[in-house]
Amino acid sequence: MNTVAPSPLDDLKTRLSDIHGLEMAGAVLDWDQETYMPPGGVGARAETRATLAKLAHEMQVADVTARLLEAAEAEGNDKEAASGDEDASALLRVARRNFDRATKTPAALVEEFSRATSLAHSAWTQARAGSDYALFAPHLEKLLELTRQIALARAPHAPIYDTLLDDYEEGLTCTALEPIWAELKAVTVPLVAQIAAAQPIDDGVLHLHYDPAAQRAFAEKVLADCGFDWNRGRQDVSVHPFCTHFGRSDVRITTRYACNDLQSALFGSLHEMGHALYEQGSPEAWEQTPLAGGVSLGVHESQSRMWENLVGRNQAFWSHTYPALQGTFPAQLEAVPLSEFYRAINRSAPSLVRVEADELTYNLHIILRYEIERELLEGVLTVADAPAAWNAKVESYLGLTPSNDTEGILQDVHWSHGGFGYFPTYSIGNILSVQLWNAAEREIGELEPLMARGEFAPLLGWLRENVHRHGQKFPPQELVRRATGEPLTVAPYASYLQTKFGALYDL
Amino acid sequence: MNTVAPSPLDDLKTRLSDIHGLEMAGAVLDWDQETYMPPGGVGARAETRATLAKLAHEMQVADVTARLLEAAEAEGNDKEAASGDEDASALLRVARRNFDRATKTPAALVEEFSRATSLAHSAWTQARAGSDYALFAPHLEKLLELTRQIALARAPHAPIYDTLLDDYEEGLTCTALEPIWAELKAVTVPLVAQIAAAQPIDDGVLHLHYDPAAQRAFAEKVLADCGFDWNRGRQDVSVHPFCTHFGRSDVRITTRYACNDLQSALFGSLHEMGHALYEQGSPEAWEQTPLAGGVSLGVHESQSRMWENLVGRNQAFWSHTYPALQGTFPAQLEAVPLSEFYRAINRSAPSLVRVEADELTYNLHIILRYEIERELLEGVLTVADAPAAWNAKVESYLGLTPSNDTEGILQDVHWSHGGFGYFPTYSIGNILSVQLWNAAEREIGELEPLMARGEFAPLLGWLRENVHRHGQKFPPQELVRRATGEPLTVAPYASYLQTKFGALYDL
Repeated sequence: MNTVAPSPLDDLKTRLSDIHGLEMAGAVLDWDQETYMPPGGVGARAETRATLAKLAHEMQVADVTARLLEAAEAEGNDKEAASGDEDASALLRVARRNFDRATKTPAALVEEFSRATSLAHSAWTQARAGSDYALFAPHLEKLLELTRQIALARAPHAPIYDTLLDDYEEGLTCTALEPIWAELKAVTVPLVAQIAAAQPIDDGVLHLHYDPAAQRAFAEKVLADCGFDWNRGRQDVSVHPFCTHFGRSDVRITTRYACNDLQSALFGSLHEMGHALYEQGSPEAWEQTPLAGGVSLGVHESQSRMWENLVGRNQAFWSHTYPALQGTFPAQLEAVPLSEFYRAINRSAPSLVRVEADELTYNLHIILRYEIERELLEGVLTVADAPAAWNAKVESYLGLTPSNDTEGILQDVHWSHGGFGYFPTYSIGNILSVQLWNAAEREIGELEPLMARGEFAPLLGWLRENVHRHGQKFPPQELVRRATGEPLTVAPYASYLQTKFGALYDL
Repeated sequence: MNTVAPSPLDDLKTRLSDIHGLEMAGAVLDWDQETYMPPGGVGARAETRATLAKLAHEMQVADVTARLLEAAEAEGNDKEAASGDEDASALLRVARRNFDRATKTPAALVEEFSRATSLAHSAWTQARAGSDYALFAPHLEKLLELTRQIALARAPHAPIYDTLLDDYEEGLTCTALEPIWAELKAVTVPLVAQIAAAQPIDDGVLHLHYDPAAQRAFAEKVLADCGFDWNRGRQDVSVHPFCTHFGRSDVRITTRYACNDLQSALFGSLHEMGHALYEQGSPEAWEQTPLAGGVSLGVHESQSRMWENLVGRNQAFWSHTYPALQGTFPAQLEAVPLSEFYRAINRSAPSLVRVEADELTYNLHIILRYEIERELLEGVLTVADAPAAWNAKVESYLGLTPSNDTEGILQDVHWSHGGFGYFPTYSIGNILSVQLWNAAEREIGELEPLMARGEFAPLLGWLRENVHRHGQKFPPQELVRRATGEPLTVAPYASYLQTKFGALYDL
């Protein structure tokens, strides 16, 4: 038995660990719902899930949590002067942030928002099926209004969109984002136009028949080679791929297999693996505390994009890996040289649907959504005018015209869930992936020769040391500065895009 | 909005539904642990599981629960005189029983027990794989000690084993069990001896190669024919087959496939399906209340044994089903007549492993475990001496000697889950299955002609009406009396065994 009386910090940790337990249990239930739950289970699962969420919220905002937090903060202030325990003060910082966020949102508003998203999601499903924006419009209006109210309740004096961004990417503001988007557009839009005028790449070879079981076996081997710990994770099938975790030692990814598309499961698996490696690299000592796991959606996405694109769509990577893929699919690939395969998996062409967009054009889909979201929330754009604004931006950025709202403004599920301010983190991740890659190369040398020999441990080791092991200890911007020596910077990513696509298309 | 003020019973139901939600979430986590969880997840899972158990227990024993229960009981007493609402008073009876049981168990003990079982289960898995009892022994010791403490906390003056029995089979005592065991032994031991002297049945045909995928497809079809609702359930693979449920609309069973054993998955699936049908038949109106689901393990086992043995090992059943099995496995079965197949699946011979034991010798495995458990808990037998004691009893009852602990004391999962006092319910179920079968035939006529036509709806309908739809409304002994007109009685089961095995072995 432990005979030392627990400190206020220990008491707080126990409380937070209980809340964490409810959240982890909820995550298991969600994973099950997406992978194995029988159809009839959906009603009971919704009830059970709502109960867990309600109990976790009640525990988070309870007076006893406030008292434990205050006592631990008081103790921390005393102690810190003497011992400077960085981890403890980081834990208190994150716990305080979570507590304040939970308590500053009126329960009635949370409930109304939850009810509104249920209705909105149902309406969106119908609207999308029939390309009937009018069905969704009043729900979008309602969600925007509630989102404004929630943002103002949390931060009465901050710009609404900044408050939303902060939820997903602590400290990020529109002021910081605007020049980033401007620089990204300045590079991407002309590049996309040049590629449109260049000789197109034929990627037909990726759309032959590929046996899903063989796809799966190959991807599992690649993931193991990259460093995914199968003892602490698994991969299953779901309609929408995702990564979830129930602690650093149980990190699960999902994928989907298409018979006539080699890219979907392969690069989807590498993408989710990037998320999973981050969670598997969270420090053991911080398990069940608010410091465990990935710090923000943007940093998380930097990991998934790095393994999907900087590794998975790199020629050096395939110079090592391609023979095994040819061996798995000889009928389809034996006669296809590496250079041709590499070009096929990097084909760029403007498209209307974000989730099918290539590495280069993807960010234009994001910037477009950011601009529309912000204008809607700030009342600059009306809900009624939004489809036309969407289509105009698609035309101006991508040179395409949606033929209906299903392939336009109705394509994403996010708004129907009330998820505003989330999209920008995708591009933050893209930008950051190259910044981190360059920082890793400055320390451990060029990564391509390593990949050409199938050596991924140095890269993963660098990420473990400079990103993963910090969990949520530092706010994202500080993490980036510590890892790269700079703030978030677009230039390396812009240069990467220009070099890569310039070479691919002989520009 | 509901403008009627909620009654004390409604408030209690909300509270109990929250507790129920935590328990259902725990059940999902347990299912996941047995089916898909990666090995590394065991530590975090133990923590999360312990947290859920702790929170459920805290909510169960909280003052607010006591007050809600008392208020609802007071209201119930007033109302009942006027309206006689049987369901409400049954709910209050079960809620009171659960509350009293929980309040008598210290929270720290519950949490320790939960954590200890997670670790014990993991150790047992390893111990069983390597036949290394020493790996499991300290965990067993720990669980026995915690079990003693819990039993004494609940009922300081009752025999420990009675308190455990009551957990699984309300009202059952060792005093009631001893004559049941005596009567069962008096029938079984001579029968087993007569069979040993008779011409043995050759069941070699069941041990040819049977493709697991084909076994699975066949069993799934049989389950659908019997009435298993695949929209509200699924089947997966686990080391030890089980049935669990997260409500009546999500009932899951597991099995295991052996290439050279046709019986294991087939009859195991029918067995677990029997449990599942009971849960799928729980009334919708009682979802998330203490009245939902099966009332006791003995009654549950009567359902699984009925479908496994009285249906699944019945000649009339196979007169309908055998052609499809022959069609699935023509190379193995085309030349095997039905009568020979029927004899093979009913071969009786002493064996070392309970889950592989035949219908007749099975109960000797149970009585053996009851005796060892009771001696361990009462301190008559030490954990160190238990394997030898086990082997000695196997020799004395079955005339066999385990060659290692994997086929001896390590074979069952139950102790690693802390399930002591549980085994007797298996034989209670065997006895009750025949009693219920006879009662069904008294009402709907002979069941064999129906089975011979593949008609299972009348039997399932009778079970739904007389067993399933009552959920936990009546204590098991009252349910038995209502369904059969008698208390639990061994004689019909004894007569069934004598008739069936007498005919099979020409005794």
